[in-house]
Amino acid sequence: MSAHRPPPGPVKFSSRLETGRALAEDVWSIFNVANLPADCINLGQGYMNFLPPEWVRTAAEEALKVVATNHYSHPKGRLRLREAIKKAYSPQLNRDLDVEKEILVTSGANEGQYSVFTAFLDKDDEVIMFEPFFDQYLPSVTFNDGKPVYVPLRPPANATGKFSSDDWKINPEELRAAITPRTKMIIVNTPHNPVGKVFTRAELELIADLAKEFNLLVMADEVYDRLVFDGKEHVRIANLPGMWERTVTVGSAGKGFAATGWRVGWLIGPEHIIRPTLAATTRIVFCSNSPLQEAAAVGLEEAEERGFFKKQLEEYTERRQVLTDCFDDLGIPYTNPEGSYFILLDISKVKFPEDYPFPESVLGRGRDFKACWFIAIEVGVSSIPVSEFYCIEHANIGEVYGRFAFCKDVDTLKRAAERFKKLKQYIV
Amino acid sequence: MSAHRPPPGPVKFSSRLETGRALAEDVWSIFNVANLPADCINLGQGYMNFLPPEWVRTAAEEALKVVATNHYSHPKGRLRLREAIKKAYSPQLNRDLDVEKEILVTSGANEGQYSVFTAFLDKDDEVIMFEPFFDQYLPSVTFNDGKPVYVPLRPPANATGKFSSDDWKINPEELRAAITPRTKMIIVNTPHNPVGKVFTRAELELIADLAKEFNLLVMADEVYDRLVFDGKEHVRIANLPGMWERTVTVGSAGKGFAATGWRVGWLIGPEHIIRPTLAATTRIVFCSNSPLQEAAAVGLEEAEERGFFKKQLEEYTERRQVLTDCFDDLGIPYTNPEGSYFILLDISKVKFPEDYPFPESVLGRGRDFKACWFIAIEVGVSSIPVSEFYCIEHANIGEVYGRFAFCKDVDTLKRAAERFKKLKQYIV
Ligand SMILES: Cc1ncc(COP(=O)(O)O)c(C=O)c1O
Ligand SMILES: Cc1ncc(COP(=O)(O)O)c(C=O)c1O
Repeated sequence: MSAHRPPPGPVKFSSRLETGRALAEDVWSIFNVANLPADCINLGQGYMNFLPPEWVRTAAEEALKVVATNHYSHPKGRLRLREAIKKAYSPQLNRDLDVEKEILVTSGANEGQYSVFTAFLDKDDEVIMFEPFFDQYLPSVTFNDGKPVYVPLRPPANATGKFSSDDWKINPEELRAAITPRTKMIIVNTPHNPVGKVFTRAELELIADLAKEFNLLVMADEVYDRLVFDGKEHVRIANLPGMWERTVTVGSAGKGFAATGWRVGWLIGPEHIIRPTLAATTRIVFCSNSPLQEAAAVGLEEAEERGFFKKQLEEYTERRQVLTDCFDDLGIPYTNPEGSYFILLDISKVKFPEDYPFPESVLGRGRDFKACWFIAIEVGVSSIPVSEFYCIEHANIGEVYGRFAFCKDVDTLKRAAERFKKLKQYIV
Repeated sequence: MSAHRPPPGPVKFSSRLETGRALAEDVWSIFNVANLPADCINLGQGYMNFLPPEWVRTAAEEALKVVATNHYSHPKGRLRLREAIKKAYSPQLNRDLDVEKEILVTSGANEGQYSVFTAFLDKDDEVIMFEPFFDQYLPSVTFNDGKPVYVPLRPPANATGKFSSDDWKINPEELRAAITPRTKMIIVNTPHNPVGKVFTRAELELIADLAKEFNLLVMADEVYDRLVFDGKEHVRIANLPGMWERTVTVGSAGKGFAATGWRVGWLIGPEHIIRPTLAATTRIVFCSNSPLQEAAAVGLEEAEERGFFKKQLEEYTERRQVLTDCFDDLGIPYTNPEGSYFILLDISKVKFPEDYPFPESVLGRGRDFKACWFIAIEVGVSSIPVSEFYCIEHANIGEVYGRFAFCKDVDTLKRAAERFKKLKQYIV
């Protein structure tokens, strides 16, 4: 076949990049440390300002000395890590997990979730997600030809001070109404980023019943499963009757071991979900990095006997306290999270001059972008505006909040609390 | 909207998994060390049986001690690595590369290439690749809704013994005829896996002229750029007149530093290619692992002054020699590679009993699958059947060859050569 000579100029990118905010500067770039004053305290991005535990790092160093752990791993993940995941999760999922068929290591939870979408979405298949949502879901779904459908988690109407993340509620009718013949999957993120909500058994049963009624997959994003406070029960939706067969549970070594830059995550589910997802991840990344998989394996193998997760939870409980004490003093509404490491602060009462010198990137966005920017510059603490976690159409709901991450050492959080006193003068 | 109750049973995977061999057991799984006798010498998969250089591993250990290099990197890649890539590649690409706009770190070359397809392919956009091709290209293109189009590299007709990888030729007419109004991209892999061919300037000019005539992108997969033998010139297609603007050059720390399991690769190209690809990779993996990026940076920073690549090339030259000497003795045709670390051996004359106990997974495939299996079991050296590097329709062309990798230490290769003597008795 012979071709016509096309018009000159740069070759056009794919139309899938025209969806969502794919090519816009994202919130992480705008509120990046690089763009903020050097002495700004960073409670924006959700990574720790401390190291992974020493014994896990030592395991990584050991792996760097061995030939096999410097080379390609099996696309399913290193057997040792799959065995460690089996040991850690089998009791929690009440089954003897099969390391060959029911566990898949991925390059962070993120790439695992992307692979599930690649493996299961056909053009215009719908994926239900609760707003606010981890912002990666939207483009990850649309890049795989899917269509996100949003169901809001609604905060209490007239909060005046501290309220619980549990007060953010699903409306069952709204959820049911969102289901169409094209619905393929519901994403349930518990503990939730950015709300901190730990879904109750009753809420998960509601979701599970709908998933069964309409034969839907459930992606249970439980990357914060080790960070559930105050003795609250963390229910895994995969454990509800009839749900194992339709649920893929997502985990992350980055969140569990303060190693967000290691890019090791995992998926657990029945073979008919894992197998297509393995086919997807094998093409996307081929395999995940080997030395840090090996270290994550040691992490999971030894965590219980070292009392690691228990101690880590105590540390996070103290960290949360530093911020909530400080927000109590401010006297403005905020969400006390039952899980994860984020606090949503109501910033709607923070007043800033209309002619404040905001950067270009902030000007086109919601009020929260301005408020968070203003707080970062004037108070010296950075955060993430929550409208980013809503679809464009519903962004206004999120504009009320800024997200402050407490995955930082206590000293840093105390310094932030000190600075927050200054915020009082801007509250109307 | 209310939905009808769908039929029960497992939720169906995406139709994109019905393309190519996405769900079939791939050659890497079939010829995996786990399936072969424990004492079989593995010349199958293309990873080294030796460590990355000590000074690069030390850099990884150092990175594990620093907070920032254990946490998320910028999706573009760590600045230090981008600076190191700039320093290493600017002289080779005859330009002062911009670390913010023209360099992108990816999770291995593989994920980088996948991201380019995600960023540029729309439904039924065509991507031309030369057969045999690195097997990941096919599903990576189809998973992103693209359509692979194949143009064969043709081996010489009547080779009797050793012949050069340069004797594998493109037919210019076949290449031109493959271009249609839907063609978006040509992949040029030089040095080539599995042929070992280093494309000549004249061949690249031919491809470049067509790319310019039809306004196509070129993906220059040059992951083996440090492995070009016998003083052969490695021409970068991005350097040909008018080609920078349409070329994305692919590199890999895994190949350059004997660290295939580190999953660090990179893309270099003009902003209008890098920017959409950044949007894609940001969603797919968010970022690549941080400690090994830092180590790869040290690798690139110090390689020249340490004379590392020169020494490594000498080692590979010796490794190649061990195998070619041995194949010369066998007296059957094979390709002497000018680049990369693979030798294609003509196995069409290797005779095996029809009723040999082949495993199920091999039986359904080409003659080369049987021959390679037979050699692995009877001779004790594993390889990869080359029909896997052809589309299903053209698989028979590849059936003539087995691919033997010499990215192994000399002792191992000598032991393999010793065993190969046994092959003589099976040659008819
Ligand atoms: C809810 C949620 N899911 C998934 C991820 C991705 O985790 P990983 O860093 O392992 O890719 C994050 C990271 O912030 C998250 O908050
Ligand atoms: C031609 C070619 N391109 C790309 C890759 C992928 O490289 P990486 O391991 O960096 O993902 C390989 C690996 O074998 C290859 O042979």
